[in-house]
Amino acid sequence: MGYLFKNISLITMDPSRPEVVKGDLLIEGSKIISIGSNLPKSAHKVIEGRNLLVMPGFINTHTHVSMSLLRGYGDDLELFEWLNNRIWPVETKLTKNDVYVGAKLGIAEMLLSGTTTFLDMYQDMEMVAKAIVETGIRGHISRGTIYTGNEKMDKAALDQLESLIDDFHNYDDERIKVLAGPHAIYTNSKEFLEAQLEIVKRRNIGLHIHVSETKKENEDIIKTHGMTPVEYLNDIGLLDAPYVVSAHMIYLNEGDQDIVKEKGVGIAHNPKSNLKLGSGMANVQKYLKKGITVGLGTDGASSNNNLDMLSEMQYATMIQKGLNLDATALNAYDTLKMATTEGAKVLNISDRVGMLKEGYDADLIMFDLNQPHYYPIENNLVSKIAYSAKSSDIIMTMVKGKPLMVNRELKTIDIEKTYKEVSEIIGRIC
Amino acid sequence: MGYLFKNISLITMDPSRPEVVKGDLLIEGSKIISIGSNLPKSAHKVIEGRNLLVMPGFINTHTHVSMSLLRGYGDDLELFEWLNNRIWPVETKLTKNDVYVGAKLGIAEMLLSGTTTFLDMYQDMEMVAKAIVETGIRGHISRGTIYTGNEKMDKAALDQLESLIDDFHNYDDERIKVLAGPHAIYTNSKEFLEAQLEIVKRRNIGLHIHVSETKKENEDIIKTHGMTPVEYLNDIGLLDAPYVVSAHMIYLNEGDQDIVKEKGVGIAHNPKSNLKLGSGMANVQKYLKKGITVGLGTDGASSNNNLDMLSEMQYATMIQKGLNLDATALNAYDTLKMATTEGAKVLNISDRVGMLKEGYDADLIMFDLNQPHYYPIENNLVSKIAYSAKSSDIIMTMVKGKPLMVNRELKTIDIEKTYKEVSEIIGRIC
Repeated sequence: MGYLFKNISLITMDPSRPEVVKGDLLIEGSKIISIGSNLPKSAHKVIEGRNLLVMPGFINTHTHVSMSLLRGYGDDLELFEWLNNRIWPVETKLTKNDVYVGAKLGIAEMLLSGTTTFLDMYQDMEMVAKAIVETGIRGHISRGTIYTGNEKMDKAALDQLESLIDDFHNYDDERIKVLAGPHAIYTNSKEFLEAQLEIVKRRNIGLHIHVSETKKENEDIIKTHGMTPVEYLNDIGLLDAPYVVSAHMIYLNEGDQDIVKEKGVGIAHNPKSNLKLGSGMANVQKYLKKGITVGLGTDGASSNNNLDMLSEMQYATMIQKGLNLDATALNAYDTLKMATTEGAKVLNISDRVGMLKEGYDADLIMFDLNQPHYYPIENNLVSKIAYSAKSSDIIMTMVKGKPLMVNRELKTIDIEKTYKEVSEIIGRIC
Repeated sequence: MGYLFKNISLITMDPSRPEVVKGDLLIEGSKIISIGSNLPKSAHKVIEGRNLLVMPGFINTHTHVSMSLLRGYGDDLELFEWLNNRIWPVETKLTKNDVYVGAKLGIAEMLLSGTTTFLDMYQDMEMVAKAIVETGIRGHISRGTIYTGNEKMDKAALDQLESLIDDFHNYDDERIKVLAGPHAIYTNSKEFLEAQLEIVKRRNIGLHIHVSETKKENEDIIKTHGMTPVEYLNDIGLLDAPYVVSAHMIYLNEGDQDIVKEKGVGIAHNPKSNLKLGSGMANVQKYLKKGITVGLGTDGASSNNNLDMLSEMQYATMIQKGLNLDATALNAYDTLKMATTEGAKVLNISDRVGMLKEGYDADLIMFDLNQPHYYPIENNLVSKIAYSAKSSDIIMTMVKGKPLMVNRELKTIDIEKTYKEVSEIIGRIC
């Protein structure tokens, strides 16, 4: 039993195929079995219709999903004022169950906007894992660490990382992966970073960190360490982790870019959050020319204020064109790549997701193009997705062959119950 | 007979009220009659429900609505290449009926995304007027003129402007207004601009023009005229028109800004189009500090690629924060103002639309906030609209008391018929 998408527009993102093909897509179990034409209809649920388009699900390479609870709490504030006076004080009040409810709210939004994979960083990650297990989305989780100087607390953070790996790493045929999550250079000591690096190497997992998000951060680290953030991470060996996902990376000089390229660091580019917090605009066009791998992330909902990868994609391309005064910068297809194949590379799972391809996991989304903003519909569907599409047009989100959202209805989340739970939490913490 | 919105969240944009009020809104005929609480239910269609929000409809101060036909035609090209090699050649093939069909397609998209008023510039404007008359949207139209040097053609363009004023200016209690539309300085001679200025003054209408859209345009005009575009327009008296709507205005120096402020020129800021064409980013934050009036526009769908004012609003605020490295720049409420009250000022109709206020025309939109991206829903609804809202959440668009879109259905446009007509046109011209 499986699904047959019949005579449908496909943007496979597979470089061996044309950008858009009209054809059939067959799924059995969790896998894509075949892409072709006139595949037999027998024994499968058949999906067909006018103006439907299927493409790989979006890969959100950087978020803090439970922060959906803090959406709209402290807008229009400068980054450090926002963190110090709004976000961090209220976060101390969050219970484990709050983190779980926040994760469900965020996952609901992601499934409704076509995200099939996300990489998270937060506290109480076993509760985010619980939400991932229950909802069926693909989720990579990292326990965000901040060095406290309190030996017991710092050891507990490392122990929690080890437990998280024991309990969830490679769960459900690798649907969940665990990464170390040192929050940033400026919130971690050298020794604490090294302790996490040791775990990462021993357990063969990835490492997820915020780097070079603001000018101030860059300048402070240069002042403190006599090196740029990238040079510092390279100096202490952190970039030799099995793989590194580095969020933001706005202020990289040429030398930094060379290191990032050489070490194969993946960048999680978060254009909307970088704008909203007044952090700046990464010149991704330059990074791509260097051959650096760049994926896209939404960051948390309190600095965006959505978890909508289609919107993020559109910001990404628009900003590169405007910043470089070059309408040809980051064209439509390369923009789609950032949200799919490149995101998969950043998360080290490009052998199983990010394109529609035989043998790959069936992580995909379907658009209904019967909306005025897709017309004229005759040509250039890649441009339509990159520049005109809206997440409300996505009528199916499937992960590992399971439809988790169909016709705008969530199949694994009781959203009304979640809304009620969110309201109870807000009444208590805000 | 009218409409009573009952116990609903209202963002009135009226500076004499709090930003968000919970209350009732009564409409009779085309007008807002009362805003209050516990208004009697008698003899009105009552609209009530959980988590509904009503605000003024969006005012799109600059578009070329019929260019919806060219959406996705020539993306990722530099402005002048895009105009010279893609847009202008295909535009010569457009028939009058094509312009009408393109206008219907664009108006459909605008009504579905909450726009109640737009200012257009194109050719064959009587056909755009026809679409405005039929669909019920509020539309201001300007006949775009390009000086040809062919005396007969240039005279015809001026005659068409006069006819357009005769036939449509102030139609349906001022639902339609006519403006002169000299395309730009670089496409019009001084004498041709002066001829249009004479008409504008004699007929007491507005003037709509593209100014300072690109660095190149700025530099070329300085080279040719020894003055900036703004200085040149001021020099020839164009800024003394009854009112001027100036699109783009990206590259204004301090002196230009002073002139714009002094002459009361309204700016139509088009952040997405300016990004997509690689034109740049206007520092609107500076303009606002000078006290200049700035509205928002989508520009045409072929350089955006949507006509979605909510998205435009979000780009506007995000860009100001990112460009100025200042998270406090263009806050949520000021962003909503740009799309409503300030847009009304730019179009010289702030005495009748742009806020919810007794005696004003009932041009409004209603959101259904039952979506994960509005949660937590407890507070800060202004931020939710500015930073999280999606146009698909708009479930009613009303102009002059008439619901033109209800529950995502267009009441005055046969959209399937329009799609077919669009396909026929594309088959012929592209």
